[in-house]
Amino acid sequence: MNAEIIAVGTELLLGQITNTNAQFLSKQLAELGINVYYHTVVGDNQTRLKSAIEIAKKRADLLIFTGGLGPTKDDLTKETISSSLKRSLVMDEEALLSIEDYYKKINREMSENNRKQALVIEGSEVLPNKHGMAPGMLVSIHGKSYMLLPGPPKEMQPMFIEFGCPAIMKQLKIQERIESRVLRFFGIGESQLETDISDLIDSQTNPTIAPLASDYEVTLRLTAKHGTSEGAKKLLDMVEKDILSRVGRFFYGYNDTTLCDEVIKMLTDKSLTISSAESLTGGLFSESLTRVSGASSIVKGGIVCYTNEIKQSVLQVSEMTLSENGSVSERCARELAINVKSCLSSNIGISFTGVAGPEELEGKPVGTVYIGIALPNDKVKIYNVLLAGSRQGIRERAVKYGLHYLLEEIKNL
Amino acid sequence: MNAEIIAVGTELLLGQITNTNAQFLSKQLAELGINVYYHTVVGDNQTRLKSAIEIAKKRADLLIFTGGLGPTKDDLTKETISSSLKRSLVMDEEALLSIEDYYKKINREMSENNRKQALVIEGSEVLPNKHGMAPGMLVSIHGKSYMLLPGPPKEMQPMFIEFGCPAIMKQLKIQERIESRVLRFFGIGESQLETDISDLIDSQTNPTIAPLASDYEVTLRLTAKHGTSEGAKKLLDMVEKDILSRVGRFFYGYNDTTLCDEVIKMLTDKSLTISSAESLTGGLFSESLTRVSGASSIVKGGIVCYTNEIKQSVLQVSEMTLSENGSVSERCARELAINVKSCLSSNIGISFTGVAGPEELEGKPVGTVYIGIALPNDKVKIYNVLLAGSRQGIRERAVKYGLHYLLEEIKNL
Repeated sequence: MNAEIIAVGTELLLGQITNTNAQFLSKQLAELGINVYYHTVVGDNQTRLKSAIEIAKKRADLLIFTGGLGPTKDDLTKETISSSLKRSLVMDEEALLSIEDYYKKINREMSENNRKQALVIEGSEVLPNKHGMAPGMLVSIHGKSYMLLPGPPKEMQPMFIEFGCPAIMKQLKIQERIESRVLRFFGIGESQLETDISDLIDSQTNPTIAPLASDYEVTLRLTAKHGTSEGAKKLLDMVEKDILSRVGRFFYGYNDTTLCDEVIKMLTDKSLTISSAESLTGGLFSESLTRVSGASSIVKGGIVCYTNEIKQSVLQVSEMTLSENGSVSERCARELAINVKSCLSSNIGISFTGVAGPEELEGKPVGTVYIGIALPNDKVKIYNVLLAGSRQGIRERAVKYGLHYLLEEIKNL
Repeated sequence: MNAEIIAVGTELLLGQITNTNAQFLSKQLAELGINVYYHTVVGDNQTRLKSAIEIAKKRADLLIFTGGLGPTKDDLTKETISSSLKRSLVMDEEALLSIEDYYKKINREMSENNRKQALVIEGSEVLPNKHGMAPGMLVSIHGKSYMLLPGPPKEMQPMFIEFGCPAIMKQLKIQERIESRVLRFFGIGESQLETDISDLIDSQTNPTIAPLASDYEVTLRLTAKHGTSEGAKKLLDMVEKDILSRVGRFFYGYNDTTLCDEVIKMLTDKSLTISSAESLTGGLFSESLTRVSGASSIVKGGIVCYTNEIKQSVLQVSEMTLSENGSVSERCARELAINVKSCLSSNIGISFTGVAGPEELEGKPVGTVYIGIALPNDKVKIYNVLLAGSRQGIRERAVKYGLHYLLEEIKNL
């Protein structure tokens, strides 16, 4: 069984966007044990798309299309495949209802061209779109399977995971169980992590160990195959134990969790509330925590004290601290953490002050960051880190360090 | 003249990396006026690469290959093309010298397989690699041109710009100038925008008009060709004027600007400061503005008032408002905007309160958002929008609506 991924969209050929869909799907298919031999990108052009389908049919068993399912005239993936396969398009009532609902909800009138999104190829299994309007579909004809997915990654990815992947597995009667587990690390670089477990990586066969660095974190994806799901999980447990015995202190969670999720989970478990005083991070810490649904019971609020004026007037940082130590200092971080905790009556106060750049500040180099944590037992911890990167990179990593240190401190309470 | 971009590398088919090279080259070729009709990705496999070459030869005049020029056994792009074109590989002495130099410089012995990197297809123009070892090349046979570029973007990109692009222009005797301009819109959907200008899109030839929706915004890329750069710009001006006469009220800026950039620019021009009170957006507004370097002179700070307790204690929202109207109300948005403006002594105060979900709140449906703007002239404007989407989607769009309304209000000051 082998697959070809065909992305449809002139914006890809103009270089306006990158084909991240092909990467996502390739990874997913690799985990299912399906070989991908080609990716193709073709524009919103019926003749060229038709020719791409003809070529792909000869060299792949499963053709996965992304993009071109929308309401406009440019969107013609469905129409072209339907004509190529000589199967008509039929209205999917469920999809139509969900599109109509969407328009009711946003209080706009549905323009007529939106009905077109609910058309599906006759005889196909419809893949619901929970994050947008156009449904996906899977149809099999003459021993070849065609899966159509929407272009926007935030619609395509959840659709593939929830509906596309199971549909393929059912069709292939995949029996061998494949189990995956992602271990997440923060505070260690990719090359250091790889060095620390290089013998494990080198000898990997089952489970496999795939390191990946992104967003200032490193993850290890462990994948095991076995006749039973339990057997595969046991294999994962064994290699995980081995890995964590070496680099466990940088490990913070599994799979899709985030540092924010873990902090919220831990604060909720211990019934602790938190508030923040943010200078260089400008609200990013607060925004990251409140992105998690359920944050409202533990996040009381925050003060973005971007100027020294606000640090003094709202957060009572002393004149002396600002004039003697400056705003980028251990002392300022300490006062901010203590005062935001008391001002917002929370159990924990955290503060961020530093230099995001592009210019140095108060003689401190770009990347200097002080993080203060005022704890329920009235202890205050100050962390000082020096971070490299862009302005936004420094802000993002500062927040991650704050979350990382919070986890350590709360664990020890 | 049309081109096909062929990326060679199994790591792409396994989803380990994204094909950013195709995006980069597509943009570059679009600017040269060369149409790209297909991207292909193929693995490190001689048979399948050969077949991809045969297909591309039939549908493109210029074939650009990236990847597979390195020293290992997996690297076989050059070898496959040379066999496909029946042209032998010859040692390029200059390239060999530069590889030997490289090894001397890093004080390591050059392994024998590295010599292979200096082999080029006979008769080709060699494109020097200033950031790595493997040279690129351009060779023309039977009216088709083949350009081979290295895979790593930090080698490929400068090589293409410095040597690849001029080589193509020389070959094509390109004289015509191409100018592009992106118009950015917020507050109008893609399908509505397309409907409003459908006759312009349908009749487009020069300039072309390409719509694209992303991040809750819509952009139109206008591209014009003309003998002179000024002539091309004039063509762009004309179609822009036509477009803006219809949908100008949703237009906010050009090219890579953002709503944040425009707000900061306008506030700076008018010497106005701003502060924010954020409930459902949890700091995202403040974080978005302070992401822009230079925000510190106009952003005073903000209060994240995630709980009603903070709305009352820090922002003095009245007990009565919260008990009678609730926190998700016009009145609460009004008090938050007025009070944050005075509490943080800024010229403008903006507030966000609403329901990000997943559950409804105070009987208000998910997606209900109130935005308050307290202006320097003591007027207060309240906007109410109902947004669809995920929790984070609602928060992001709420912030964009806030920025959009701010622009309108400041413009009218």
